[in-house]
Amino acid sequence: MLDQLKETIIALSTAPGVGAIAVIRLSGEDAIDITNSVFRGKNLLEQKSHTAHFGTIRNEEGEIIDEVVATLFIAPHSFTKENVVEISCHGSPYIVQRLIKLFLTKGVRLAKAGEFTQRAFLNGQFDLAQAEAVADLINADTEASHKAALNQMRGGFSEQIKNLRAELIHFASMIELELDFGEEDVEFADRDDLKKLVNQLLSVITALVSSFDLGNVIKNGVPTVIAGKPNTGKSTLLNALLNEEKAIVSDIAGTTRDFIEDEINLEGVVFRFIDTAGLRDTEDKVEAIGVSRTKEKMKQASLIIYMFDLKNDSLTEVNRDINMLENLGIPFIKVGNKMDEAQPELFAEMKKDPNTLFISAINKEGLEALKSKLVETVNLDNFKTGDTVVTNIRHYDNLVQTQNSLNAVLRGLGDNITGDFLALDIRHALRFLGEITGEITTDDLLANIFSKFCIGK
Amino acid sequence: MLDQLKETIIALSTAPGVGAIAVIRLSGEDAIDITNSVFRGKNLLEQKSHTAHFGTIRNEEGEIIDEVVATLFIAPHSFTKENVVEISCHGSPYIVQRLIKLFLTKGVRLAKAGEFTQRAFLNGQFDLAQAEAVADLINADTEASHKAALNQMRGGFSEQIKNLRAELIHFASMIELELDFGEEDVEFADRDDLKKLVNQLLSVITALVSSFDLGNVIKNGVPTVIAGKPNTGKSTLLNALLNEEKAIVSDIAGTTRDFIEDEINLEGVVFRFIDTAGLRDTEDKVEAIGVSRTKEKMKQASLIIYMFDLKNDSLTEVNRDINMLENLGIPFIKVGNKMDEAQPELFAEMKKDPNTLFISAINKEGLEALKSKLVETVNLDNFKTGDTVVTNIRHYDNLVQTQNSLNAVLRGLGDNITGDFLALDIRHALRFLGEITGEITTDDLLANIFSKFCIGK
Repeated sequence: MLDQLKETIIALSTAPGVGAIAVIRLSGEDAIDITNSVFRGKNLLEQKSHTAHFGTIRNEEGEIIDEVVATLFIAPHSFTKENVVEISCHGSPYIVQRLIKLFLTKGVRLAKAGEFTQRAFLNGQFDLAQAEAVADLINADTEASHKAALNQMRGGFSEQIKNLRAELIHFASMIELELDFGEEDVEFADRDDLKKLVNQLLSVITALVSSFDLGNVIKNGVPTVIAGKPNTGKSTLLNALLNEEKAIVSDIAGTTRDFIEDEINLEGVVFRFIDTAGLRDTEDKVEAIGVSRTKEKMKQASLIIYMFDLKNDSLTEVNRDINMLENLGIPFIKVGNKMDEAQPELFAEMKKDPNTLFISAINKEGLEALKSKLVETVNLDNFKTGDTVVTNIRHYDNLVQTQNSLNAVLRGLGDNITGDFLALDIRHALRFLGEITGEITTDDLLANIFSKFCIGK
Repeated sequence: MLDQLKETIIALSTAPGVGAIAVIRLSGEDAIDITNSVFRGKNLLEQKSHTAHFGTIRNEEGEIIDEVVATLFIAPHSFTKENVVEISCHGSPYIVQRLIKLFLTKGVRLAKAGEFTQRAFLNGQFDLAQAEAVADLINADTEASHKAALNQMRGGFSEQIKNLRAELIHFASMIELELDFGEEDVEFADRDDLKKLVNQLLSVITALVSSFDLGNVIKNGVPTVIAGKPNTGKSTLLNALLNEEKAIVSDIAGTTRDFIEDEINLEGVVFRFIDTAGLRDTEDKVEAIGVSRTKEKMKQASLIIYMFDLKNDSLTEVNRDINMLENLGIPFIKVGNKMDEAQPELFAEMKKDPNTLFISAINKEGLEALKSKLVETVNLDNFKTGDTVVTNIRHYDNLVQTQNSLNAVLRGLGDNITGDFLALDIRHALRFLGEITGEITTDDLLANIFSKFCIGK
């Protein structure tokens, strides 16, 4: 690992494609020396950290490849804590390729995905949870996901985990001390204090674990199903919502995110629509929503929009569907479509429930109320800047394991088991917590985490 | 114009999309002050030019939008010769959008396409031909187009135009002096010397004008047609060439240029294949290449690959086609396909011409020889670094106009016309040359040129 760190790595750090400029980043012991060997204009070896220098980069034959600005970050005052050079060149993929190829002949190698961030972690720039947040931050595309990632990158979450761990370590060391005294039957660690502490820790960890549902919504959106009989108007509703989304994507050049089919962003919450048998495929022999394949799909949803047809459905059918949905245990919103052509009796009956919404998908009536209802159901209000929300499934998994270990400690205390067993469970909890921030780590774990990054970060 | 220049402008300067980092550029009198008003970490007003500073950017509510590095370029030591700040942030379109929106509330406005380069030109950083080369450089995707654009950006072409113009100005002033003396019938400008000079200028300008054919090939590729009867194997050949191209596009992450259907790059020359009626549409009632629609298409080509079928064609048909092509006046390469199933007599007859190539498109035999022949026919060998090649149609047009004016001068000298008429034609030539480098310009011309740039440059 250490030898690898000495190697100088290179990658395009800006988005691929044509732009006015592109930035190529080098990191490693020889980053500045190597850049200096192809750079004309100034001796880069004589320059201070955090300075930018205009010049040309030439190949072996003295041919100019481009006019560039090279900015130096001298170790340890850089993102990776190594020598870093950022080369800002003209934003042509052809030039970027020529420059990178030139550097590859000078003993630099291509960076692996996430390798700059991995080096920043290994060199102590930040902990593992913070490093992971860098990738989340880059991919954040709503206010909520941006806030959660930024908070985590700036150490909010790590701080909480480290504090929990420090308290546990204190108790663990007391118990280990008891073990050293062997047969003498002393108790340095007061069992009641330990129980109190473990309960406190458990309540914090349980809160973090349950924040993952919210975190998942923030990071990945709310998987949503529109359920209902064929010809109820499900596709019409979905298209009405999606077309509006298409129209409101950003107008600042270069920042327009790709329009994702089947996703809408309401007040910073992304609703991701899952296709169900009944949703699109009206040819399907699906008569009502009570069909196993549709039901299966619905179980993947966190939210169901149940749509019934005010013009054609019977009250019996609607009640049967609602009954089925209640048994499913997933939050659902009742929406009656074709309100302008409704059967008076059905309309009157359904209006009795103030939570039922009425729309005309084709005329785009009632959509605002439906959108408010969607946002309200997810309820992000309790998520504010600074709140710690678990968004990463690896962290979630570690927290659940910590919870299990702490519960084992509690059971052990109840059963008056000996210190060595208690110590074992506490050590487990410590390990799971430590893996979150990377205080305990393995090469496999790191490789797995950073391979999910993009190249150049 | 001057007031507009004072305004501070902003744009994303790197390619759109997700990357490790993105760079937002501000230029204008207040670029540093405005950045400082939202930047925390350091007082940017106290920093030197060409220095990079780590900090956070916060909105009105004090919420952090991102951790950034702001690099300062203090006027006149910047690309635009104005105060410039380059903000390197995390490469998320969401963050870029949030940052740009924040700056827009601070009195900055969005840059128009090419506005940074336009300001660089208006502030005397470089002339118009050099500014135009910046856009060409960014879009260059072969070695030849890159060389031509870089040479032009670094002033090679401008230098030549300026020298030509300086010599003409000298003579123009002599003749204008004669005019001042009115009726006195003096000749400060020796007519023989003027004739010699105009002839010299004409030979340089004629060379530049004729370099445009090569320039056009370098910049836009060689429009190429594969002509031949249906079922000769034209699509098979095209697919064989294109699939190889697909396989060799760059392997450095982020530099892979979009694969363009119907383009292949051979030794730095791009061949752009034009679809003809006979080329793809075998359903079409096209029996041979002698059909008017196909002929019309072929006239757009700079190069024709004439493909005949060694298995099924008759010598009469082939000779008729070749005869027709010779009358068309476009370079063509004769290629016999299905060499492995050839009729012996036809094969023997066609082999008599050493310039005819034989391939089996389906077995990918003979393709290397065909590729060499393609490159050889275009003959880029005479294009070396430092050579001036006209690649811009605006420059070409101005050079042709200059040529016309100088020819008028020559005719005038032959006819012994008076100095005032000579002066008129010389002034025309001066104006056309001056428009190339922007010594003579109009707002319309500038707006037209820079609107073709990308935003952020």
